[in-house]
Amino acid sequence: MGALPVEPSKYNVLVVGSGGVGTMAAYAMEKSGKSSVTAVLRSNFRAVNDGGFNISSRDHGTISGWKPTHIRETIPNVARETHLQPYDFIVVATKNVADIPPSVADIIAPAVTPKRTAIALLQNGLNIEKPIIASFPSNPVISGVPYIGAIEKPLGTIKHVNHDRLIVSPFINPNIPASRSENAAKSFREAYSCRGVTCEYEPDVRKARWRKLLYNASYNTVAAILGMDTSRMRVSEHVIDSLVRPVMKEIQQAAKVVAPGVELSDQLIEDLIRIDTFEGFFRPSMLQDVEKGKFIEFENIIGEPLREAEKHGVSMPTLRVIYGLLKGIQWKTMEANGLVKVPSVSTPAMKYGKRER
Amino acid sequence: MGALPVEPSKYNVLVVGSGGVGTMAAYAMEKSGKSSVTAVLRSNFRAVNDGGFNISSRDHGTISGWKPTHIRETIPNVARETHLQPYDFIVVATKNVADIPPSVADIIAPAVTPKRTAIALLQNGLNIEKPIIASFPSNPVISGVPYIGAIEKPLGTIKHVNHDRLIVSPFINPNIPASRSENAAKSFREAYSCRGVTCEYEPDVRKARWRKLLYNASYNTVAAILGMDTSRMRVSEHVIDSLVRPVMKEIQQAAKVVAPGVELSDQLIEDLIRIDTFEGFFRPSMLQDVEKGKFIEFENIIGEPLREAEKHGVSMPTLRVIYGLLKGIQWKTMEANGLVKVPSVSTPAMKYGKRER
Repeated sequence: MGALPVEPSKYNVLVVGSGGVGTMAAYAMEKSGKSSVTAVLRSNFRAVNDGGFNISSRDHGTISGWKPTHIRETIPNVARETHLQPYDFIVVATKNVADIPPSVADIIAPAVTPKRTAIALLQNGLNIEKPIIASFPSNPVISGVPYIGAIEKPLGTIKHVNHDRLIVSPFINPNIPASRSENAAKSFREAYSCRGVTCEYEPDVRKARWRKLLYNASYNTVAAILGMDTSRMRVSEHVIDSLVRPVMKEIQQAAKVVAPGVELSDQLIEDLIRIDTFEGFFRPSMLQDVEKGKFIEFENIIGEPLREAEKHGVSMPTLRVIYGLLKGIQWKTMEANGLVKVPSVSTPAMKYGKRER
Repeated sequence: MGALPVEPSKYNVLVVGSGGVGTMAAYAMEKSGKSSVTAVLRSNFRAVNDGGFNISSRDHGTISGWKPTHIRETIPNVARETHLQPYDFIVVATKNVADIPPSVADIIAPAVTPKRTAIALLQNGLNIEKPIIASFPSNPVISGVPYIGAIEKPLGTIKHVNHDRLIVSPFINPNIPASRSENAAKSFREAYSCRGVTCEYEPDVRKARWRKLLYNASYNTVAAILGMDTSRMRVSEHVIDSLVRPVMKEIQQAAKVVAPGVELSDQLIEDLIRIDTFEGFFRPSMLQDVEKGKFIEFENIIGEPLREAEKHGVSMPTLRVIYGLLKGIQWKTMEANGLVKVPSVSTPAMKYGKRER
């Protein structure tokens, strides 16, 4: 096979994770005219290979049979597949299930060209960049906080209902000059920006990350535990009063101390409580994952804010209990997937085995 | 109809609630030779009327086709059904779902003879006697804390697996002499005691009630929220470490302040963590209720200890979150039973309705 074509004037982009967020990112980047996208597809490879993506998009209209420049089933190995150009950007739009291998770093490793590839994480939560920087110390890492409602159902069909707004910032990589990270983030913004989408550059990565935690640590988690849509929580009132708002307040207080300068106002909290369209009876992503028996991404959304806050002397009593429960839910999914085994009888190795009498 | 026969030397007893606990109470009281039992049956009336109870009991062996002296489908109305003798004891062995009508007091009211009938509550939780004393100020109220594993499945068939140990105490009714309440409790103990069962009298009602909360507020609630048996919690370890033991410690601390003199030791906590037979993969009653779509009894098991503790300045951060979640679970069951309605669109009356813009 000869070298795959990439227009020299375009960014060579690899998109990993082709659900709603990843596919709309791939679409925007191709539409911008500044990027040539290779998308790695897993479950939907056959459907997309045969008929392309069918997209019904709030921002881009109806698109039938669309394909990015290249699609493939596996992560490219740039060292071995010598016909490949190095990637300017790897866009990671998978869930970030930090507690279940393989890690994001392990997944993308074969496609990363040291010193060159900028890695854009379109994922939620705190400290997601830490293991990436540890694995790829010479590469810029970019934060993308997506506000987009897009789901894939069935395979290859994307329904994109909320305006695509992406907040792009540089993560701080202490091994390279700050300007290098900033320039990478600005270039990524350029590569993503096209008519229809809003792609904003914010120099301080912390605000957008903490702000999004307000919703994700509260509504998302409580919905997952209770099996309840956000409209019903609002009708019940007490689920908001005793769980959702207390978590938001804990995030607000933690942000103040952990990320000085990041102010999340009371008004923002009250607005976010009412952010979902009531008539949508919205089931947040973590609840959908639980319902589908999938692993949930809770370590960066709950675990890291909790650990950061407690390290700084801020207690988060509500979030601490929610964290314990989510870990229990994850454990059940791990058992269902054979990652933990439950013995049929008590064994001496068990911490909470039979009492010795 | 002539007066129903009650041997004059026997206590005339009404048992309300004929699941596992109630049926084994009825059986013990008849077996004691000191009581004549009328059992009020609901769902199982036809099965028991036709073939009696079939009991497989750890304490009493196998009993086929057993019936108490009388069975009936409705609560007796002692004022209207003039052939009825007044009841010496009403034994309440229903679940105590304090937040869903009808209340226990409303249910038993027609069978209570003022000044005479002693009301024995074989139920869990704190402050269960309060509404009973408010409704029947001249009657003694007795606490029965049951330790028994007995379930009914199918209707009329009781499997009784754990030894029947009942701790009997007088509740404090400030309207009558303490000796009257104490004597009623002692008589009830006599009326219940028979070969096979352990029925203990404890003068101070608080210890047995708080002690049982250790398990019921922790394992029972976490199992209900997570849908997890107690053995799996123990294998996971962190469900014990981050949820079960913290709740037990909160109950321990609250008991110290709310009920001075009640000491629940650390050793007791460690023992209770390992109390269930590991091989049984036990699903506590609150979890079973959730799985069957039934209402859960959480106000007296969680709500009252929480309110008592906070009134005394003791915070229960873990239990507070668990309480909020259980209230959410109850709300879902209320919706499923038509007790709350969810509007299809946001209305101005909603506290958390659409934002006005």
